[in-house]
Amino acid sequence: MNASASTSSPLLTDLYQLTMLQGYYAAGMTAPAVFELFVRKLPPGRNFLVAAGLEQVLAYVERLRFDAAELEWIGKSGLFDAGFAARLAELRFSGDVDAMPEGTVCFPNEPLLRVTAPLPEAQLLETRLLNLVHYETLVASKAARAVLVAGGKRLIDFGLRRAHGAEAGLLAARASYLAGFDGTATTLAGPAFGIPVFGTMAHSFVQAHDDEAAAFETFARAFPRNAVLLIDTYDTVAGARKVVDIAPRLQAQGIEVRGVRLDSGDLGALAREVRAVLDAGGLEKAIILASGNLDEHRVQALARTPIDSFGIGTSLVTSADAPYLDAVYKLQEYAGKPRRKRSEGKATWPGRKQVYRERSSDGTPARDVVTLEHDRREGEPLLAPVMRAGRRVAPAPALDAIRAHAHRELERLPPRLRALADATPPYPVEIAPALAALADTVDRATGGIIDEEKQ
Amino acid sequence: MNASASTSSPLLTDLYQLTMLQGYYAAGMTAPAVFELFVRKLPPGRNFLVAAGLEQVLAYVERLRFDAAELEWIGKSGLFDAGFAARLAELRFSGDVDAMPEGTVCFPNEPLLRVTAPLPEAQLLETRLLNLVHYETLVASKAARAVLVAGGKRLIDFGLRRAHGAEAGLLAARASYLAGFDGTATTLAGPAFGIPVFGTMAHSFVQAHDDEAAAFETFARAFPRNAVLLIDTYDTVAGARKVVDIAPRLQAQGIEVRGVRLDSGDLGALAREVRAVLDAGGLEKAIILASGNLDEHRVQALARTPIDSFGIGTSLVTSADAPYLDAVYKLQEYAGKPRRKRSEGKATWPGRKQVYRERSSDGTPARDVVTLEHDRREGEPLLAPVMRAGRRVAPAPALDAIRAHAHRELERLPPRLRALADATPPYPVEIAPALAALADTVDRATGGIIDEEKQ
Repeated sequence: MNASASTSSPLLTDLYQLTMLQGYYAAGMTAPAVFELFVRKLPPGRNFLVAAGLEQVLAYVERLRFDAAELEWIGKSGLFDAGFAARLAELRFSGDVDAMPEGTVCFPNEPLLRVTAPLPEAQLLETRLLNLVHYETLVASKAARAVLVAGGKRLIDFGLRRAHGAEAGLLAARASYLAGFDGTATTLAGPAFGIPVFGTMAHSFVQAHDDEAAAFETFARAFPRNAVLLIDTYDTVAGARKVVDIAPRLQAQGIEVRGVRLDSGDLGALAREVRAVLDAGGLEKAIILASGNLDEHRVQALARTPIDSFGIGTSLVTSADAPYLDAVYKLQEYAGKPRRKRSEGKATWPGRKQVYRERSSDGTPARDVVTLEHDRREGEPLLAPVMRAGRRVAPAPALDAIRAHAHRELERLPPRLRALADATPPYPVEIAPALAALADTVDRATGGIIDEEKQ
Repeated sequence: MNASASTSSPLLTDLYQLTMLQGYYAAGMTAPAVFELFVRKLPPGRNFLVAAGLEQVLAYVERLRFDAAELEWIGKSGLFDAGFAARLAELRFSGDVDAMPEGTVCFPNEPLLRVTAPLPEAQLLETRLLNLVHYETLVASKAARAVLVAGGKRLIDFGLRRAHGAEAGLLAARASYLAGFDGTATTLAGPAFGIPVFGTMAHSFVQAHDDEAAAFETFARAFPRNAVLLIDTYDTVAGARKVVDIAPRLQAQGIEVRGVRLDSGDLGALAREVRAVLDAGGLEKAIILASGNLDEHRVQALARTPIDSFGIGTSLVTSADAPYLDAVYKLQEYAGKPRRKRSEGKATWPGRKQVYRERSSDGTPARDVVTLEHDRREGEPLLAPVMRAGRRVAPAPALDAIRAHAHRELERLPPRLRALADATPPYPVEIAPALAALADTVDRATGGIIDEEKQ
């Protein structure tokens, strides 16, 4: 077992999931359980989330099984009873999953995903489901902010090198693309997800040449249609002049410089100077790509400059202003009885829930109501079945279809939620009377659970 | 190709590495290049870094090759010349790596790692080397802060669910363990790295039972020596009383409760109350483990309470106060000529470098000097050969040996650097006259490079 096998290993979980499973099996507790995954609150300055990660969850759940090496480790670890590994060898996911489609705009206390399955199966999923949905939702939500303020300019994920490991880099490419980015520099996201990949050149390419203009010429010859030349290694405006100087000779050989990249300094001012140099030199079609410590605030500030494309890296893939969400996966019902955790500051809403979104006549979301699944309300229900008895109810949607859905969702957001600062008032998410009443009833019962027959 | 294959795929890289490779091959630029990986500055409130990730780097470099599916994608992508895939098919890493041992305390502008290899090979490594070293160094550096203020109390990584993807979770377990944590809840870190794994129970286990005491009893029976019972689902002190109530009956059957976990509320005050309840009930040996929104500041504040162990999750694995480092991998020499990037605010020190650490008589680090490799200085050189001609110079050190090295490093830190706030003065890292002189010479030469013969 090594790190490269880890994305699908059921041992990529908290040990307590396994200790609890042994406890559940020992006590014969295999009745149906309902868990829901939700975010308790928004980070400061954030007005909404964009649900993402469901496709990776379903792929994981479908393939869930312990292989021989994993079972052997469990048997020899000294942590478990003798029969436990044999029991795990039989474990498959046989339950149901309901979820919001990826790309859906959502809010705190709304279940993004619900798992209904025999307790050990539903319990075992917790860690990896959170690990996947938390991160992709985090990045999609961050990316959407840049998309909303970019004024239609092209946005590219440049973050792999400072993403937190391999999977973060790859999933950040997916999450930002589905939220409206135009592509990524992460090559593997091309073959893995069909995402457009973009590349320019690094400073090392320029530095490795004895002369900056020679570096530009080498690169342009290697990519006669697609070369984007990095011009800030020594002096940005002088770099632009060198591009203009070599352009006629290249054009005579059928080579068109696609554009230039700025990666340091006052990007707005430099973009204006560089645009003037390029235009005066006959390179009106050459684009200007900017990168270097960008985030959605910088993109907003630079949206009206001559910059055509933004490469956004570290701040996007680490969600630097809010590197995590308060995402949890909580037991809401077991063996037909609603359950409620009442820990200080961490109480949950019990029961199987649905979210209804009410819209204004123009389609703008006006209010969400969280209620019990059987309490049919006005509006559009946001959770839909995606897996039944361990099988997907439909093939995975194309990533571009998810991206189109996210685009519609973002387009219809009320203006105050599209802003980068806290919206006043925040989007209303209301708890329906039926749900509040159930929570009260559960609270009155001893120990936070209730026998439905006594309701 | 899918995400689960991604940790070793050479396509897990920025597209520009591949476009530059095509450019280098086209121009015949395969002379030796020297790249160094370093961090430009410390995040606010941080006084040092702990180098980590080298082992994953070496494993990646040793196995570096494009497989048939990857080459096919490159050939069909339309992004590259016809002969490029064939060239990549032959690519292996044939160069040298020098590095600081993992667990070494280090500072900005000090190379953590140097790669010397034919330019295309050294260039291609950039993205994944940064991705690995950046993240493990980030987490090891964060973890060391908690270790330094924990007063010897046990620290356990609880972060997988909110780590940024699978690899982040797994590598966070490794990086925090090498920095002095006692173990992790991430099960796979046991078989993958030999790290001690710890597990308790979740609220769902308690909630799934109709009665909290029944949940405790089920779990204690399943783990007659190791049960750590989560007591805050409904009321923490009442939970402790239930543990005391059931203990005699369990003890009569040879079952000892190992301890209790608190996960919410005022952890210090609750730990005192719970300790009193446990002691009065004859459970003096039962430990108290605390978790829930902990970081090094909370650990410091709680170090003198009756809490025995801390489970630290999200803040650790996302390095929440500083979710990234300004880590870069820069060309310092090509074809025997030192190179310097001079971009505004991002200038580099040219040439092949070494770091010398000068110590006081008691072993406390007093000053680091960054100089050229051949400029022998006082003190201990921090970079050592780890790979020559594509082969490791020695087998990988055991993780516990790395952890012991980190322990010695942290033990010898001057008190002002061990604090959680900015040290005054910061640790001195000086640029040696020989290096400053080379930088000046390079700057005077056109384009930021210099012909060594003219020096």
